[in-house]
Amino acid sequence: MTLDQIETPAALIDRPRMMRNIERMQAHMDALGVAFRPHVKTSKCVHVARAQRDAGARGITVSTLKEAEQFFAAGFGDILYAVGMVASKLPRALALKQAGCDLKLIVDNLESAQAVAEFGGLHGETFEVWIEIDTDGHRSGVKPDEPRLIDIGRALNGNGARLGGVLTHAGSSYELNTPDALAALAEQERAGCVHAAERLRNAGLPCDVVSVGSTPTALAARHLEGVTEVRAGVYVFFDLVMRNVGVCDTTNLALSVLTTVIGHQADKGWAILDAGWMAMSRDRGTAKQTHDYGYGQPCTFDGSPLEGYTLTGANQEHGILANTGDPDTDIAAHLPVGTRLLILPNHACATGAQYPAYHARSGEDEIEVWNRFYGW
Amino acid sequence: MTLDQIETPAALIDRPRMMRNIERMQAHMDALGVAFRPHVKTSKCVHVARAQRDAGARGITVSTLKEAEQFFAAGFGDILYAVGMVASKLPRALALKQAGCDLKLIVDNLESAQAVAEFGGLHGETFEVWIEIDTDGHRSGVKPDEPRLIDIGRALNGNGARLGGVLTHAGSSYELNTPDALAALAEQERAGCVHAAERLRNAGLPCDVVSVGSTPTALAARHLEGVTEVRAGVYVFFDLVMRNVGVCDTTNLALSVLTTVIGHQADKGWAILDAGWMAMSRDRGTAKQTHDYGYGQPCTFDGSPLEGYTLTGANQEHGILANTGDPDTDIAAHLPVGTRLLILPNHACATGAQYPAYHARSGEDEIEVWNRFYGW
Repeated sequence: MTLDQIETPAALIDRPRMMRNIERMQAHMDALGVAFRPHVKTSKCVHVARAQRDAGARGITVSTLKEAEQFFAAGFGDILYAVGMVASKLPRALALKQAGCDLKLIVDNLESAQAVAEFGGLHGETFEVWIEIDTDGHRSGVKPDEPRLIDIGRALNGNGARLGGVLTHAGSSYELNTPDALAALAEQERAGCVHAAERLRNAGLPCDVVSVGSTPTALAARHLEGVTEVRAGVYVFFDLVMRNVGVCDTTNLALSVLTTVIGHQADKGWAILDAGWMAMSRDRGTAKQTHDYGYGQPCTFDGSPLEGYTLTGANQEHGILANTGDPDTDIAAHLPVGTRLLILPNHACATGAQYPAYHARSGEDEIEVWNRFYGW
Repeated sequence: MTLDQIETPAALIDRPRMMRNIERMQAHMDALGVAFRPHVKTSKCVHVARAQRDAGARGITVSTLKEAEQFFAAGFGDILYAVGMVASKLPRALALKQAGCDLKLIVDNLESAQAVAEFGGLHGETFEVWIEIDTDGHRSGVKPDEPRLIDIGRALNGNGARLGGVLTHAGSSYELNTPDALAALAEQERAGCVHAAERLRNAGLPCDVVSVGSTPTALAARHLEGVTEVRAGVYVFFDLVMRNVGVCDTTNLALSVLTTVIGHQADKGWAILDAGWMAMSRDRGTAKQTHDYGYGQPCTFDGSPLEGYTLTGANQEHGILANTGDPDTDIAAHLPVGTRLLILPNHACATGAQYPAYHARSGEDEIEVWNRFYGW
């Protein structure tokens, strides 16, 4: 199969680029002396996760119980479900545990900790639970110094639940764009999470795991003393948001959307593509960054950006490609109907989610179809 | 099954509201004396399209060949593929025609018209093709007065292709918000498309169908002289964007996302939900409208908005619900962990696309699972 034979739009993985991204992150983790647990929410694809595991990853992180079920069925045993557990989801978690999955849950409040412990006790199962720590104020978690951290830890110290560790995610790293700022946030993430672990240990509670990470802080971290593992997701593909954060450049981007030119509005300098927001996702993550890529950066088949052009607009199944300067009124000659292009996405997690499968490309004519899944 | 038994996040259809939306549109079309061809890209669900057909719709509009294949397999014969055809997609269109599907294609340029005619001739098939007309400058299409309109029509007047009509979509209606502006655009859409049809007929070409529409212009149209059919999609569910356009209010919104409170950041007045952007989509269509609903409007189970609260932020599987005024530092008491809410979405087409199935709710305990599909 060649690129010209794939029906468009399609989600294309550049496999050599992906492998280099995987190796780069794993080498950095090895150098820092910590385990690495990739977040598979980015790909939701067993083929991608296997490549991460083969490179040295230990365990995976998931964002839904469906991911846990699908990856467990594909032979992944050590799974962290990294969204706060609530009582209504415990039956599905129990089924996974009873089937032999080494599933870890997280909580950031006393009600949920008690619900897990009670449910576990009732069903003769001991859930391993980690406490979510808030080290940058961007989302959920207990702040490292909050008194209730110890109360939550104690609630997890019984028959139905066992405190396994602490974890944090400095997601505000996506808003930064200098190496020093990223390194400082990585240190804040590390220090806050280690401090929370020490408080729990000082209270006589077990806290084996100290888990931190986001793609930017993982790559920017200069030391990880006290940390046992790191998590990151989007590094596997990278994307234009990460390019603007400064942790990759466009030649590292391993996911793109294959599209076809279907028409023009020559007076406006528009080429109309069959990749609209359904193909690219509605993610406009670069809108507030230093370089706004619209709905994506058009490239030729060899991955070279068409300089000066972006996807300036998107309807459900139509993308509008235009020059950002003066209108290219000769665009129908430059990019005739039928021309095929690659579009680099703003956000690989969001774009991948629009597709039932990836087309993974090793060389010019070596293309495999890798299924992915969605839903909850 | 009750709402409390559905795992969250879930996409919920309020069936009585949906039926009222379907009846309202069909009654307006009947009153204007035109056929109605719903755009099923909004739901991608056979159950929803059947309800539209049962109410009087004639034929359907699709945005992908996969929709054409899926709906044809489910018994829908009269299908308009309303995205500009290109040569590489013709084999799939041919397979549908050969299987007996009454498939109509559209083009807006001479190259594509010639490609369809040539391919049809080569395979002994006559494709019915409509010419896309640009009546508001928002996307693709030939302007009603362009000389090339006649050239395209002539290219479709042979063995492999037959000119069936003209169609237009005044998608810029989404940017308006007064009845008079919408009515004026509906008239512009009608007049432009009818004029293009007249030019083709005056050139001796057939042009039976004159097809117009978008949800706002369809509802705002005061007369449709010369038009034979209208298309609209999102009216079946409506959404917050349509509420801001002024063609519905929040009590008409038939699609919502069922979510669970999984934690809080009480000092900031945040409740953390298990509906993030994967559940809501990244669509921020209300951001530039008169009322910005963030990532959605929280409601109680009876559909009443929680006034003053919106989804102010979203990560992949986390939504942040907050008061838009002073922080509600008692939010953990108002919306405890485990609380279930409905979230009205900005854009029903984008939100529905995130789900493998809808939960269609007729009454308190009458809930059916309606599958939907995705991909291309």
